[in-house]
Amino acid sequence: MTDTQNPPAEDPDRDARHKARMERKKEIVDARIAAAQDERGVIVITTGNGKGKSSSGFGMVVRALGHGMRTGVVQFIKGAQPTGEEMFLRRFPDECAFHVMGEGYTWETQDRARDVAKAEAAWEVARGMLRDPGIGLVLFDELNIALKLHYLDVEQVIADLRARPPMQHVVITGRGAPPALVETADTVTDMTPVKHAFQQGIKAQRGVEM
Amino acid sequence: MTDTQNPPAEDPDRDARHKARMERKKEIVDARIAAAQDERGVIVITTGNGKGKSSSGFGMVVRALGHGMRTGVVQFIKGAQPTGEEMFLRRFPDECAFHVMGEGYTWETQDRARDVAKAEAAWEVARGMLRDPGIGLVLFDELNIALKLHYLDVEQVIADLRARPPMQHVVITGRGAPPALVETADTVTDMTPVKHAFQQGIKAQRGVEM
Repeated sequence: MTDTQNPPAEDPDRDARHKARMERKKEIVDARIAAAQDERGVIVITTGNGKGKSSSGFGMVVRALGHGMRTGVVQFIKGAQPTGEEMFLRRFPDECAFHVMGEGYTWETQDRARDVAKAEAAWEVARGMLRDPGIGLVLFDELNIALKLHYLDVEQVIADLRARPPMQHVVITGRGAPPALVETADTVTDMTPVKHAFQQGIKAQRGVEM
Repeated sequence: MTDTQNPPAEDPDRDARHKARMERKKEIVDARIAAAQDERGVIVITTGNGKGKSSSGFGMVVRALGHGMRTGVVQFIKGAQPTGEEMFLRRFPDECAFHVMGEGYTWETQDRARDVAKAEAAWEVARGMLRDPGIGLVLFDELNIALKLHYLDVEQVIADLRARPPMQHVVITGRGAPPALVETADTVTDMTPVKHAFQQGIKAQRGVEM
């Protein structure tokens, strides 16, 4: 977040130097765009301990919907109440197939065999989406958690991802993305916490956290 | 993204240890939730060089819409074409006030005085949203860029943020969030790039990148 390349606010030559710098920047960006030619579906992973992993996935769903694509969502962690994104996206059943795993797991359920069965059932739904070329983008929210806890086999998941329609995009969220999945993905971002309202005694807020 | 705490897949004691660990985890999470009592609007910043800053902002807009809140979006960078999120959210003009700055800037326009004027006009729209208690969540997409380039005065922006309705949430995205803004915010995440499809010769993809 540091940036020391900007001139100070009082610099009289700033406009001319700004123009020259922006011209150079435009040349570089244009050259990189021209070099990137491959058009195909990508696998995007958002992981790490910071905020914004699931919400960036839902933002990509909205982006895809705006381009007229059909989308699919499978949530691998279910909370006590439906999230705002679920309530909103369920308004568009023809555009977004929304599936939430039957019940929560890990620290809320404390029953591993049941967790595994639930995760496997959710992956079956996900696999159905991965076989449907009519779905342009799928979001597997918190899938990384199911993999991290060994509820699902990462090699099977990767095989199913690789067998999907060539133009389909996949977004996978959750802490602790396994290295093999990171290796398979095209774009990976680690959400790194800088600070969090929760640490400052602020409750989870509707519309922001849930 | 490394996690070495999970037992190997063949461990016979795994279920019992899993249960004990999850019980401890639940206690810790419950205690932290009980301790966080303050309910008010928060300022969330997503910054850094990785993917997912804007999309996480749009995900939070969708979350808020799902909770029946009215929302506002101001985009401080305009591309050549409307983004998917703009095309989708413009379908709900009563629920989401969507404003895109009049034209692009920085490397596309190369005219600093004009850029400043456009950024100031966009901030006037943003300020109007910050005065409206009927708007539950506002997204100022790429505002950090306008601040980083000194198109807007960060102290004025902070003063306007502080004067907003107490329950209103604000999400601010873009690289290079200024330190004073980070200081003011409640939750800050740095999106750290691990890898990007663009580096591998893959074009920007509809629904994912734009």
